[in-house]
Amino acid sequence: MSEPLVISIDAMGGDHGPSVVLPGLEKAIQSLGAGKVRFLLHGDPSIIESALLASSGLRDVCEPRAAQGVIAMDAKPAHAMRRGKGTSMWNTVESVRSGEARAAVSAGNTGALMAISRLLLRTAGNLDRPALVANWPTLRGTSSVLDVGANLICDAERLVQFAIMGSAYHRVIHRVARPSVGLLNVGTETEKGHEDVRSADRLLRATSMTFDYHGFVEGDDIAKGSVDVVVTDGFTGNVALKTAEGLARFFRAELRRTFTETALSRVGAFVAQQSLRGMSTRLDPSGINGGPFLGLNGIVVKSHGGADANGFANAVRLADSLGRSAFIAEIDRDLLLSATTQSEPMRARTVA
Amino acid sequence: MSEPLVISIDAMGGDHGPSVVLPGLEKAIQSLGAGKVRFLLHGDPSIIESALLASSGLRDVCEPRAAQGVIAMDAKPAHAMRRGKGTSMWNTVESVRSGEARAAVSAGNTGALMAISRLLLRTAGNLDRPALVANWPTLRGTSSVLDVGANLICDAERLVQFAIMGSAYHRVIHRVARPSVGLLNVGTETEKGHEDVRSADRLLRATSMTFDYHGFVEGDDIAKGSVDVVVTDGFTGNVALKTAEGLARFFRAELRRTFTETALSRVGAFVAQQSLRGMSTRLDPSGINGGPFLGLNGIVVKSHGGADANGFANAVRLADSLGRSAFIAEIDRDLLLSATTQSEPMRARTVA
Repeated sequence: MSEPLVISIDAMGGDHGPSVVLPGLEKAIQSLGAGKVRFLLHGDPSIIESALLASSGLRDVCEPRAAQGVIAMDAKPAHAMRRGKGTSMWNTVESVRSGEARAAVSAGNTGALMAISRLLLRTAGNLDRPALVANWPTLRGTSSVLDVGANLICDAERLVQFAIMGSAYHRVIHRVARPSVGLLNVGTETEKGHEDVRSADRLLRATSMTFDYHGFVEGDDIAKGSVDVVVTDGFTGNVALKTAEGLARFFRAELRRTFTETALSRVGAFVAQQSLRGMSTRLDPSGINGGPFLGLNGIVVKSHGGADANGFANAVRLADSLGRSAFIAEIDRDLLLSATTQSEPMRARTVA
Repeated sequence: MSEPLVISIDAMGGDHGPSVVLPGLEKAIQSLGAGKVRFLLHGDPSIIESALLASSGLRDVCEPRAAQGVIAMDAKPAHAMRRGKGTSMWNTVESVRSGEARAAVSAGNTGALMAISRLLLRTAGNLDRPALVANWPTLRGTSSVLDVGANLICDAERLVQFAIMGSAYHRVIHRVARPSVGLLNVGTETEKGHEDVRSADRLLRATSMTFDYHGFVEGDDIAKGSVDVVVTDGFTGNVALKTAEGLARFFRAELRRTFTETALSRVGAFVAQQSLRGMSTRLDPSGINGGPFLGLNGIVVKSHGGADANGFANAVRLADSLGRSAFIAEIDRDLLLSATTQSEPMRARTVA
């Protein structure tokens, strides 16, 4: 039997800390299989020890690692970087850097987790920051949308890098051999948009890649599921994601209002409640939040701060899938490949 | 009794042309009152004449104006500008330029209408293009969101101009004396975002205006209705609007699926169908589309190309409200005021 995969866990992160993380791990073990995975549990030793005493399922696969202090959910990233050494989050990422663990999961402060990950693991290629990817529910399944918040201004080269990283991610997680990639724009014709997206469009058309470049897509193509991977700058992606979250909440409020409006509609809601609950879950904004940081020399998955045990278990399963894949090596290879290909025309121009 | 307001109408524009425009005008006359408004109807004379013969309601308030040709819904704006002279759309805007009409309404090609309006009416201040505003349904009513597609790259000064124009528009249409204005960003703290939004934030805080500046807002604040006017660049605004439209369609598809899933849910849907229909109307994406171009030296309202007679009547009522207001003069005054205020610190710096 092969060695179990080691995942490093921030036991203290998130709005609920260990009270969600530990039950989340139990759920993850059930679905991943007890012999397949092992956890390094970073956090307050007394809390972790008593949790392990209470659960034999956890005790068998968890190795407690004492950590001093927790990074607050509202701490500034710069502060977390300077003063975070030795906290549960820092040590969780450090286990990946040292090679002890294949992946890290934290439900803590997003900005702090990104800053610490960037400091300890460094970014791949010439990336300045890792990209945040959102798993977006669509009419055809799930699309991967990036960047949703880390890189606010992106030139053409950066957008091409997002296409490479996003498709490597989508390939591993959604088992699509050659994902289709679209570039988010205000129209689909080649002359639409500003210079950065037009130039990224030309680069993507010219470069032979491990994905199918579809061309420009518009905002409404995201929910349609027109492509597997939607690429955009972190400013636009963040606004689009949060706009969608706001609209999902608006819809649920409307739904509630609609079904309490009249006596008849209340009867309707009562009768159809099971279907309604299913729909409400599919539209839960926390479902599209969280995800891995792409472009680090190591795997770090951010679980949503407010997620419940099921949500945290999902983040752990995601870390497991990424940890068993070769996607970091694939991203490195493709980033290198694209850098070589892209410099060709420039060299040609210099000679001519 | 005061003179009726004159509105210039492109009878041929939109996916359905006169078959929607003329019934739309009839509906608009009913609600505006027959003596209050008069229409210049630009288009194919034979179609217009026979429509006027058939409807005494229209005949009394419409003046037919023969126009040669129609700008196709897929025509390129540059082509429309070069070759559009004498078409129904061109003449509709020309009537505003000449002063014959106070406002123009067309359901035709958006890009062509903007290009022709810009050419004939010119933009106010130092604006390059007019801004497109979306009327966005929120939990608290309706917000005005701009720019949703015309100005893809916006510096701080342009964003301040949008705040001025958007609040003048919101004041007239939604009768809010001092609208609240928010600047769309990836976070609400002052250090968040790229240089253009941070610098616009500083300008808006420093400038005393005819609106209440609220600070940064995020994507989910739009549907929440956190502010009356949401200001953003045309790239981000267009993506956000279309993302919302896509999600509204996704939501309706989910709703349909939910209510045909089981026998019980079908019973529920049947019982609650009246409430459901009401909700579906409120969430209709065509409801948030269309609107006026802000920042022209004249009033031009774009009706949604696929709108029905009710939708076109709404666009006409919007043109009527804008035509009776002083909002173009207000925008001119506030743009001038802000230009003066903004140059103060620069002058001070030069002297020092």
